[in-house]
Formats: sequence, C-alpha cells, structure tokens
Amino acid sequence: MNRNAVRAAIHIAAVFAIYLSAAMLIPAAVDLYFGHRDWQVFAFSALSMGGLALAVAVATQGRPPQVTTRFGFLLVNLLWFTLAVAGAVPFMLSSLDLSVTDAFFESVSGITTTGSTVINGLDHLPPGLLLWRSLLSFMGGLGVIALGLFLLPFLNIGGVSYFRIESSDIEDRPFERFQTFAISLIGIYTALVFICAVCYAIAGMRGFDAVNHAMSTIATGGMSTHDTSFIRYANTPAILWIGSIFMFIGALPFSITILFAVRGRLDAMRDPQIRAFAGYCVMFALAVAVYLRVSMDMPFFEALSHSTFNMISIITTTGFSSDDYTQWGPFAVACIFVATFLGGCSGSTTGAIKSYRFLILFELIVNGLRRLIYPSMVQPVRYGDRTVDEDMQRAVVLFIASFFVLWAIATILLAATGLDLTTAMTGALTSLTNVGPGLGPVIGPVGNFSSLPDAAKWICSAAMLLGRLEILAVFVIFTPTFWGR
Amino acid sequence: MNRNAVRAAIHIAAVFAIYLSAAMLIPAAVDLYFGHRDWQVFAFSALSMGGLALAVAVATQGRPPQVTTRFGFLLVNLLWFTLAVAGAVPFMLSSLDLSVTDAFFESVSGITTTGSTVINGLDHLPPGLLLWRSLLSFMGGLGVIALGLFLLPFLNIGGVSYFRIESSDIEDRPFERFQTFAISLIGIYTALVFICAVCYAIAGMRGFDAVNHAMSTIATGGMSTHDTSFIRYANTPAILWIGSIFMFIGALPFSITILFAVRGRLDAMRDPQIRAFAGYCVMFALAVAVYLRVSMDMPFFEALSHSTFNMISIITTTGFSSDDYTQWGPFAVACIFVATFLGGCSGSTTGAIKSYRFLILFELIVNGLRRLIYPSMVQPVRYGDRTVDEDMQRAVVLFIASFFVLWAIATILLAATGLDLTTAMTGALTSLTNVGPGLGPVIGPVGNFSSLPDAAKWICSAAMLLGRLEILAVFVIFTPTFWGR
Repeated sequence: MNRNAVRAAIHIAAVFAIYLSAAMLIPAAVDLYFGHRDWQVFAFSALSMGGLALAVAVATQGRPPQVTTRFGFLLVNLLWFTLAVAGAVPFMLSSLDLSVTDAFFESVSGITTTGSTVINGLDHLPPGLLLWRSLLSFMGGLGVIALGLFLLPFLNIGGVSYFRIESSDIEDRPFERFQTFAISLIGIYTALVFICAVCYAIAGMRGFDAVNHAMSTIATGGMSTHDTSFIRYANTPAILWIGSIFMFIGALPFSITILFAVRGRLDAMRDPQIRAFAGYCVMFALAVAVYLRVSMDMPFFEALSHSTFNMISIITTTGFSSDDYTQWGPFAVACIFVATFLGGCSGSTTGAIKSYRFLILFELIVNGLRRLIYPSMVQPVRYGDRTVDEDMQRAVVLFIASFFVLWAIATILLAATGLDLTTAMTGALTSLTNVGPGLGPVIGPVGNFSSLPDAAKWICSAAMLLGRLEILAVFVIFTPTFWGR
Repeated sequence: MNRNAVRAAIHIAAVFAIYLSAAMLIPAAVDLYFGHRDWQVFAFSALSMGGLALAVAVATQGRPPQVTTRFGFLLVNLLWFTLAVAGAVPFMLSSLDLSVTDAFFESVSGITTTGSTVINGLDHLPPGLLLWRSLLSFMGGLGVIALGLFLLPFLNIGGVSYFRIESSDIEDRPFERFQTFAISLIGIYTALVFICAVCYAIAGMRGFDAVNHAMSTIATGGMSTHDTSFIRYANTPAILWIGSIFMFIGALPFSITILFAVRGRLDAMRDPQIRAFAGYCVMFALAVAVYLRVSMDMPFFEALSHSTFNMISIITTTGFSSDDYTQWGPFAVACIFVATFLGGCSGSTTGAIKSYRFLILFELIVNGLRRLIYPSMVQPVRYGDRTVDEDMQRAVVLFIASFFVLWAIATILLAATGLDLTTAMTGALTSLTNVGPGLGPVIGPVGNFSSLPDAAKWICSAAMLLGRLEILAVFVIFTPTFWGR
C-alpha cells in the first residue's frame, strides 16, 4: 500500500463527507421551518463538518492514484467509516444529547440501512432529527447500490464478481458515460422514493411520515418515525401492501429498475436470483399467513397482509414491523429467524446472504452429491444458463462460511456484555444482515437497542459495518498482506 | 444401483442385526441376576430379532457385491437404520411400555452416540434397560470409528477422504490383516472403557454406574444412569476430571489410540487437528472458568472443574453435565451454544463440524483474502505441512454449508410442532451434532425430550441419523442419480 493511494482514498472520503455535510442543511431547513431550535445543531454540524472535510480534501489533493483492488478496499472501508462518523455529529449535538456510543450506533445503523435504533420516543422527536435518520438510510442505500454497480464487482467479494462480466446491467449498459449513469442512478432512485411517498400519502399516511418511510422503504433501511414502526398502520392494509411492494422493488437488482426506467424493458427479470428471491418471499408469506389463519384465527386477508409485510420486511433486510410478531407463535418466529439470513438480490440495498448465493450453493450441493457417486464426473456448476467458475464457487461458500463464523463470534462477544442468548444471537444476526430488529423482549420489533450496554452497541455497530461491506472487504484490510509491499 | 448390491447390503445389515440381538443377552443376564423380570423382554427380543435377522441373512445370501461407492452409501444408511430399529425393540416391550416413537428415539439417540433421552426416572429404571442404553452408545461409538477408519474415507464425505491417502493411521498401518485390525480395534476400545470404569469406581462411583458411564464416556455418547446426569457427582472433582480426560481421549482420532496401544508411539499427536481441538477445549474451559469465578464468585478450582467437564462434554459431543449450566449466566450459555458446533477430531466418535474442517476453513479464508489483493496469485491451501486439493476444499465447505441449511430447516420444522424458538433451534442443533442436551427449560441439561410432541421426536431422530452419517451420505441416497443406471 503506497502513500499516494492512502492520500487519494482520504481525499475521496473527504469529498463525500462534504456532500454529507451539505445534506445536513435539509434537516436544518426543516427544523427552521417547523420552528425547532435544533436547526442550529444541523447548521453548525454542516458548517463545521463541511469545513473540516473541505480542509482535509484540500490538504490531500494530488495526482490520481493507481486504481488497484487494494485501493478499492481501502476506499470502501474509509468511506463508510467516515460517513458513519460524520453522520453521528448531529445526533451528539442535538437536543437528544446522545452519548458518543449512541450517536455512532444510530449513524451506522442509518448509513448501513440497518434501521436499528437506540432512541426512545421517536414520535416526539423534532422533525429534523427524524429526517436525518431517514436521509442517512437514503444515502446509505444509494451508496451501496453504487458500491454494487461500480466497485464490488471488481473486488471479487463473495461472488459478486460474477456479475461483473456477464450480468445484463453491464452488457446492456444504458449510458455511454459514467457520469450520466451516476446522475441517472440518483435520479431514478429519488423518483422511486417520491412515487413510494405519494402512494403512502394517498393511502392515508401523514405527509412527513410518508416521505421518511419512503426513504427507508426503498433503501430497505427500516428507520421509522414511530417507536412502534408500522404498527400504527396495522389496520390500513393499503399501506402494508404499498410497503411490501416497494420493499420488494428495493430488493431487486437496481440495474433492472434502471433498465425499466430508461428503456421500458423487463426481460432482465428472468435472472434466476429474482425468481429464487420472489419464490422464497411467496413461500414464507403464504406459510405464515396460513399459520396465523389457523392458529390465531385471524381472517385470511388480514393474516396475509401482515404476514406478507413482515416477512418481506425481514427477507429484504428492511426491518419494519406491522405487529409484534414475536407473539405470532413458534412456527412464525422460527420462520422470521430463518428469514433473517436470506436477503434479496445482488446490486440492491439488501444485506444478508442473498438469493444468488443460495442458488449457487444449492447447485454446488447437488453437484457434490452427484460426484460422490461418480467421482470422476466433471459437470459444470450452473447459474441459469451460464457456468459458474471455480473462483466464483469458492467466493460464495467462503462468504457463507465466514458469515456463520463471524455470527458465532459476535454472539459470544454480545453475551459477554451480559445479554441473554436470544438477544445476543439475534442481535448479532440482525446487525450482520442489516435487518434491524432482533427477537426477544429487548431488541424485538416493539423494542429497541437503547438499553444495551455500551460495549454491545459498539459490537453491533462493527457488525453492521462488516455486514454492509460483505464481511471480506473489511477483513482484508486487517491482513498483513494488505499493508505489505 | 443393481439388485445384487441391494441384496448384499441387506445381507450385511442383517448380519450386524444378529450381533446386536446377541448383545441383548447381556442386559438379559444382568436383569436375571438382579431378579428383574425384564430379563424376559431382552431374551425374547434377542431371540425374535435374532431369528428374524438370521432368516433375512440366510434369504439374502449370494455372491459378494461389486464394491462401489454407491454400495457403500447404501450399506451405511441401511446399517444405521436397521440397528436403530432393532435396538428399539426392547424399549418397546419393556416394563417402561414406551411408544414406537419414544422407543425409536431412544434407540437412535443411543446408536448415534447422541445421548438425548425421552425416559423420566432413570434412577429407578431396571438395570437391564440402563445397560442397554449404554450398550447402544458403546456399539454406536465402535461403529462410527469403524465407519471412519474403513468406509467413509473411500466415500469422500465432507473432506474425510483426505485422511484416506495421507493420514498416519494408514501409512503406519499397525496390522497386516483387516481382521486382526478389526479385532484389535474392538479390544482396545473395550480396554479403554474398562480403564475408564475402574477410574470412575476408584473415584467413588458405584460399580454399575461406573461401567455404564464409562461406555458413554468413551463413545462420547452421554447416556447416564441418572436423570440429572453427572450433577450428583458435582462435589467429587476427581470424577469430573476423569470424565474430562476420557471424553477428550474419545474425541481423538482412534488411530492414535491404536498406535499408542500397539507401539507406544505418540508422534501422531502432532496432527494439526489435535492441536486445534485441544486449543479450543482449553480456551473455552478457561474462559468460562474465569467467568464463573468472577460473576458467580465460585472458588477457582471448583469453577475450573465444572467448566472443563461441561465444555469438554459439549465440544466432544458427549452431553454429560455436572451442573445446570443454563444458570451460569449469558456468556457461559453463549459459549455452550457455540461449542455445540465444534466437535472433536476425524476418526473419533464425536459428531458436529470437527476441528480439521475448521482448520481448512480458516486456511481457505486466509487464502481467499490474499487472493482478493493478488487475484492472480495461486497459493496452495495447507493442512499442516501438506496441501489440501480442490476436491477436499470443496467437500469441507459443502459440508459446513449443508450443515447450516439443514439446521435452519430442522429448526423451522421443530417450531412447526409447537416448540419455542430456543428449544427448536438448540434441539435441531444438538440432534444434528449428536451432542444430547439443548438449551432452555425443556431440553436443557436438567430436562429431557420426553415432553416433546411425537412429530418433534421423529424430526430429532432423523437429524441424529443425518448428523451421525455426515449429512451428505444420507442426502445422496435420495438423489435420482443414486438409483439411476
């Protein structure tokens, strides 16, 4: 790792920190409009952080770095960490008076689109702070799409590289120039949020809530403006179905949304990972709906609305809830637990293991079983009608194995801070997968992370960042090889 | 799969069923000696099952089959299933009057060396039944060692094949002829049980209990003659340490025990998997001991005795307990949960993932991280001073991935029978890993599986058999390829 690369990475991170600081002016304006004095906090944060970032950016100017994979890894880690730190400043200075730990946790939770919170009394929070939480999710979601489209494919993380060469979003590159592409990406993403907000508002949500929830929905973040998330909309099925549909859209490869928006084409929907993802969404939603109908005697449509909303919310790693599903009975709880591992598609804002990895894993197992019988038979592992090469196979299973090892370690660490097993286990899991709520009375859908000890909050923050950056992209910068010649 | 192979597999399974029936005469003799009328049950079972097995064996006589991997898989599945069914007969006919479900569960738990039980009031059970439970563990342990030494290495399951070519137990084959090897194996295994029983007795255990516990210890089974397992010996540290040592020995590759017994050599102890296994045993035992010392104010030696005994019991997949460790506080419980995944060495009686797979996984992750930085660098994955080939790497990660997928499915199925999340999750896990006790109030170390619904008992029975046969060896016989031409 040469010094020029480190300097250039710091420079780019500082530039993005300037953008983030500029974004703080939005909640400042809103608080000013609603006459809340926290506008000063946001204005001060924007100016001080923006000034600091500008100074760093100027100080680190220089010739462009050699673009290597090492530079990519360094940049990604530095970017998310810097934005998490910068995003925490308003929380710390605001009327809430959060500790450093809490402010960092909340910021990480936003920027990683996790949606866990340490703040009690969201319903009475000044609008600027609520908006800032949603904006962090919004920007985090945009960031992770950009990461998935432009950077991760070249870093060969967890099998995403596969989509570098052959995925339709590259083959059918809809824009000639990178900058046009980037601007269109932001435009389409914002338009989607706008449409979602309008739908929410038409269905009866208050305008401010609609805007905030729409940002959280498309980013599959899960930050809500209410302590009880979507439970207050439990009797408005239209809102639950709108949420389900837009969370589902948020979990699709964003390239497909772009292709549809620009060319009106939907043929990329044939991607096997989308069918697998839609398949397990329908399967879990139906199974739990039938279970609720039978065991809790809920009318079927009501059961289906709630089951669909909550299962899609968990599977897409959003984390909204329309009911305290921990009271739904053991089968539903086990489904929610397992759904936490699943995730959506590559190139989306979702976390967790993701459907294409399961598809490849399934192919590998079937292939492996065949080879047990005919050891000399060499048959390619397939993804749809294409062949998955050895590197890709290894990357997929390595990701899954690292995921479970990290989950075990995080569980032990969280338990060491005094959390009970369910809280430790599901807290570690929900952080790593960027879902949001866990299970049990503390961090369940009607609880939050505020009562956790500080150490636990730091562990969860680290897990959220690790999960967001697909684990190995963080691990790699802690190896001696990375910093060697 | 040709008909001759199926016939031959049934023939061999029937021959082993005759041996199992003959073994029933031991509890018959013991019950007769102690004047308990259940001796008739064992005698009747022995004669009827033995007669039936003899008839089948005679009817299926014929020319030896072609020894293919398919034949091997069929035989292994048939063998364990047949012995589990035959072993269940005395439970069903005995004075306990167990249902088919309970009898099958108890027999599977014994033969797979799991040690879970559905019987309440073990302390008042007739001696024959207690002995039968221990004998099933004893025979199951012997069976799995034989499986690991003679059969699995040729079936390339989960990476065991590695040890086919290069492991020292083959290089230094201590016996010229297979039969001598087999008889010595039984002799050394039995001698180990005898030594363990004598040690237990000297330390103060009642003779009958010592014999039973010794069988369960060496087989890393965990069947006890008391409802409360080793809790009644909680104040006799000598017994706990003897247990710890012999469970540890039971989890070592049995080839090492043979080499030591026959040639007095211990150099095979340098095997990296043994160092890894010993390493995590010491780490977990010490960590939990310090935690007990600090948080529960237990005297250090007492804390160390209990921590060592229980952690080694879980790691080696034995399942004895010297205390209700669910009351040890969150950190200890999380350690126990994670330890349930670990397991001992290849070629031992332990289940779970096993240390050599973790070693290879670790190497793969380190190697994968290096390749993220230098994608073109090809560096071999190493196990000790040897290279792990691609097939072996794939087998290891496939096993681990299948393990977690199966665990998720079993958890959902168990929850569907009405079990709470903790019971479902740890019940599925402890069955798959052949450990024995789970967590939570129902199936924890002071509980048992008796109150579970029948469906849950069948699911656990299936999971125990799957875990014992390294998962893929069972999966494979459910593929069309297996039964095709």
